[in-house]
Amino acid sequence: ISSKLPKHETSIFSVMSKMAFEHDAVNLSQGYPNFETDQKLKDLVAQAMNDGYNQYAPLAGIKQLREQIIDKIEKLHGKRYDENKEITVTNGATQALFLAITAFVNPGDEVIVLKPAYDSYEPAIKLNGGIPVLLQLEGKGYKLNIEEIKQKITSKTRMLIINTPHNPSGNVFSKEEMQQLEALLEDTNIILLSDEVYEHIVFDEARHYSASAFPNLSKRAIICASFGKTFHNTGWKMGYCVAPEELMAEIWKVMEVNVFCVHHPTQRAFAEYLQSPEHYLDLGRFYQEKRDRFLDLIKDSAFKAVPSKGTYFQLLDYSEITNEPDVDFSRRLIKEFGIASIPVSVFNKDQIDHRQLRFCFAKTNQTLEKAAEILNRIK
Amino acid sequence: ISSKLPKHETSIFSVMSKMAFEHDAVNLSQGYPNFETDQKLKDLVAQAMNDGYNQYAPLAGIKQLREQIIDKIEKLHGKRYDENKEITVTNGATQALFLAITAFVNPGDEVIVLKPAYDSYEPAIKLNGGIPVLLQLEGKGYKLNIEEIKQKITSKTRMLIINTPHNPSGNVFSKEEMQQLEALLEDTNIILLSDEVYEHIVFDEARHYSASAFPNLSKRAIICASFGKTFHNTGWKMGYCVAPEELMAEIWKVMEVNVFCVHHPTQRAFAEYLQSPEHYLDLGRFYQEKRDRFLDLIKDSAFKAVPSKGTYFQLLDYSEITNEPDVDFSRRLIKEFGIASIPVSVFNKDQIDHRQLRFCFAKTNQTLEKAAEILNRIK
Ligand SMILES: CSCCC(=O)C(=O)O
Ligand SMILES: CSCCC(=O)C(=O)O
Repeated sequence: ISSKLPKHETSIFSVMSKMAFEHDAVNLSQGYPNFETDQKLKDLVAQAMNDGYNQYAPLAGIKQLREQIIDKIEKLHGKRYDENKEITVTNGATQALFLAITAFVNPGDEVIVLKPAYDSYEPAIKLNGGIPVLLQLEGKGYKLNIEEIKQKITSKTRMLIINTPHNPSGNVFSKEEMQQLEALLEDTNIILLSDEVYEHIVFDEARHYSASAFPNLSKRAIICASFGKTFHNTGWKMGYCVAPEELMAEIWKVMEVNVFCVHHPTQRAFAEYLQSPEHYLDLGRFYQEKRDRFLDLIKDSAFKAVPSKGTYFQLLDYSEITNEPDVDFSRRLIKEFGIASIPVSVFNKDQIDHRQLRFCFAKTNQTLEKAAEILNRIK
Repeated sequence: ISSKLPKHETSIFSVMSKMAFEHDAVNLSQGYPNFETDQKLKDLVAQAMNDGYNQYAPLAGIKQLREQIIDKIEKLHGKRYDENKEITVTNGATQALFLAITAFVNPGDEVIVLKPAYDSYEPAIKLNGGIPVLLQLEGKGYKLNIEEIKQKITSKTRMLIINTPHNPSGNVFSKEEMQQLEALLEDTNIILLSDEVYEHIVFDEARHYSASAFPNLSKRAIICASFGKTFHNTGWKMGYCVAPEELMAEIWKVMEVNVFCVHHPTQRAFAEYLQSPEHYLDLGRFYQEKRDRFLDLIKDSAFKAVPSKGTYFQLLDYSEITNEPDVDFSRRLIKEFGIASIPVSVFNKDQIDHRQLRFCFAKTNQTLEKAAEILNRIK
């Protein structure tokens, strides 16, 4: 049997979560909360089932939910998408990303991927015969360098993938950086795929600038978002993408063939729940508190926090402790100390290893305390 | 913007359902029940949410559900798959089919598709650069002709797609036909993709023979199944595929990149519900009663039933009424008479038109009576 992805290995998130489970470790690896989603949302799903919304939904998602999402984007970013032509509700943001890549990446097309990057982008590009063109963000702080992107653009460049707020670094693109991207892509045919799943998780003075807010970006952008990350139910697998009509028309073709539609009662629930903006507008503060608590608890440890502006991940530099490669060190932390994280090198170009681990702090305070207690012991 | 599927049109099922809605027609077009799924199943989903199963499930599905499915297949077909290596729970059977095609069809590969066929196969093949090789089943009864398949096989044939029980014809492959397929594929490298979503809906003396029951088929087969079709909840979008380990390993790679996993609480519910075989073993009788009722109600009409052995679709020959193309006639039936069906030509090779419409009888008795009342008036 020939393979389209001969070198593909099981996702690091599955691997580390499994290992954490086997060693009964405190699991700060895979990005999901270990506290509960709102009871009200669960009740809304149950109600939708009891109300009889149990057969196929329309391909693009139910109208009520599409409208809520479109309204929300307009309120937050000032861009009005057409709820009948420019949106699809998807099986999580992962599917939204997959649809975008599959709809537009042809064999031989180049796709610029800024590394470190979430691990589904590259195999999705390769599955479609595309060529991932990897560009490592600068240094231990992973700074954007527009000039370097420019140098990677060729006549074959079909797409540029960005992710803001950024997993795993916690960086958030500034308004100026988004404008630089806008200028860069002007006069090109390059599609921008903007992964904004942590849109509501920004800290301190940072603000999330969506690609939808920049006219010369939004006209070429497919923007992917996640309910799981925002509403604490990653296992409900619901997200969406928005894009201009001409792009969405192609995404729909793939959607239809790929899954046809997604879980109908859950769509009903989110349509109702999104009517209360307080359910997501407070998320930044909620997670900032968790981050601040976590960092405070480990402030005297040998782990040094890499400054971050968003997402529910925190990079910790462990170079004071050991010079071990991060892949080895993360495994040893599970086995010897009972704490699971993600080695950052697996996200990086050429597995560059800055001796950093990624910790997910979307956890109960009790879990964060347990984690800190362990980290404080590692010298 | 270049398109990978330039000629792709919106699914006939979406089109006809939308038109039925707009004209307030009795909707026997798209294949889904208009009666309710079991309250117990809804309660189980609600319970799973309340029990906290709201974060990512494992990629292949939760262990409890995988085990139940594997046990069920063993009981029914005598083949024991490995629950840890040979199954994936998917976003409906549509995704299972997509995963199989995407994992194995490379640019230039040929895939033999028996027509009439469900409308997602061909675009999925084309999305992957494959070449659908269409073979029309024989005559108005859509009989399998093994010799004709044999003639279509070339050195480029990567896959053969079968569907039994068959949508839209209602045919069910006999044991002999499955054995002929087995002999045909012996000594080839061709993968068999077996769409068995109507596995439990067979009538009279007919029996469903799964590809899993034939050793020389199952070793090369990917078998796709649907909970939506079996448990009356097509909008919960859950199905699965099973295949030998070497094939499943490639499917997992695509699954991970495509959606990562599917709705966790719904998986819990099915894991529990599948423990009671009476929930699916009676399905054939349940639908046979509906079919018999429907056919009895229209026995004096000008529509003539094409003999069928399974699925919840019934083909009706309308050649006594008019010589109009089925595409036109089906639209006219919605607009003038208020009843929606599917024109069979859209499933056929070269849109061969046998003057047949497909009616879905997965409907309440009241809906079937309303439908029959209309059909009896059309002369
Ligand atoms: C789908 S598992 C990965 C979850 C996640 O977003 C992460 O850990 O980065
Ligand atoms: C996903 S819509 C199509 C439903 C169906 O299986 C059919 O009508 O044939």
